[in-house]
Amino acid sequence: MPRIHFQQQLAELKDKLLAMAALAQQAVEASADAYLQRDPGLCQYVRDNETAINSAQREVDEMAYELLAKEQPMAIDLRFILAVIKINGDLERIGDQSMSIAIRTKEMLEHPAVDLPVDVAGMSEYASRMIRSAIQALLDADAKIADSVLVMDDEIDRMDRVAFDDLTKVMQERPEVTLQAMNAIVIARNLERIADHATNIAKDVIFWVRGADVRHQVSTAD
Amino acid sequence: MPRIHFQQQLAELKDKLLAMAALAQQAVEASADAYLQRDPGLCQYVRDNETAINSAQREVDEMAYELLAKEQPMAIDLRFILAVIKINGDLERIGDQSMSIAIRTKEMLEHPAVDLPVDVAGMSEYASRMIRSAIQALLDADAKIADSVLVMDDEIDRMDRVAFDDLTKVMQERPEVTLQAMNAIVIARNLERIADHATNIAKDVIFWVRGADVRHQVSTAD
Repeated sequence: MPRIHFQQQLAELKDKLLAMAALAQQAVEASADAYLQRDPGLCQYVRDNETAINSAQREVDEMAYELLAKEQPMAIDLRFILAVIKINGDLERIGDQSMSIAIRTKEMLEHPAVDLPVDVAGMSEYASRMIRSAIQALLDADAKIADSVLVMDDEIDRMDRVAFDDLTKVMQERPEVTLQAMNAIVIARNLERIADHATNIAKDVIFWVRGADVRHQVSTAD
Repeated sequence: MPRIHFQQQLAELKDKLLAMAALAQQAVEASADAYLQRDPGLCQYVRDNETAINSAQREVDEMAYELLAKEQPMAIDLRFILAVIKINGDLERIGDQSMSIAIRTKEMLEHPAVDLPVDVAGMSEYASRMIRSAIQALLDADAKIADSVLVMDDEIDRMDRVAFDDLTKVMQERPEVTLQAMNAIVIARNLERIADHATNIAKDVIFWVRGADVRHQVSTAD
């Protein structure tokens, strides 16, 4: 078996991670659409997708470990592989949060639709944009794009607080929709946590790019 | 400067991680006590402790990276160091969840005490026990203890569901305590998530112990 060049293997690892990121992003969008369109089929889709995410995660992890074990990469590549392992974990958790949205939505579909003060469309679009930018930062090895993701996190925290306050008020005024409002609160929280994971991904990119620069200088001086 | 033996450095890394685990466990207990005793001082303590956890996390991470970069460890040690990096992340998130409990508790203290159907004492003790066992599994490199932690996770999920249902009922019957009940729901969820992180730690121990065994056999055949 011909030994594939190390840089080629790194590129393959990156591709696998991008496929994983696509699955995670799809999960976020499908779960939000399931809520917005009250579509039980999409809830099921998110569940099925979760299995694919879990096996994609294992694949990325295994490949990263193999590279670390066999290639003993130097500083910059080492930090990249470690960033991949961490980002991979965050993507899997984005899948978990999307699952939670799908489960909550399915529960809500058992009850009549109520108009609730929660901007699921806005929050999910915002969270998706954060994931996209974080992945873009990874692709371009661009710590500045990653910085912009960190700044975005405050806004979704604010959206989550507004949703929490508004929905709590609804519950006090209309106790009969408490269960629906509770589920909406959990969904808003899930979206906020998805954004948290995007933030973690951006931090890992910064760690890789900036940390790697520093390490690189040290290693050339060795 | 004398070069410290690699095994000694690994032992030091383990010690640092144990110190980190102690901080995280303390955060869980202090935040639950803050709730149970309605003690604003303990809320503040948890916030201060969070800073210590964050710097302990950075220390463990940096040491792990140094070891990977300079020592190029073989299979079993490599998997141990990777497990440490992952466990370190989970311990930091346990600190985050404890912070959230402290923040929610502080908000609750601004309102009169209400008797709510949520077993914070039971849930926090159970979650603490899961963390302790997961760390014990790490110390003893014992995948069986780690397995027992995985089994425990179902029970705290059940406790969280019961709290959610009971507190939702309270909100419907007594809308005037909605805000307090909401905060209690979030706290129960935080405790459930702390248990999730203990479960992740146990999984990482299994990955290290069982994976390392497999790798070890492969590497002796090389």
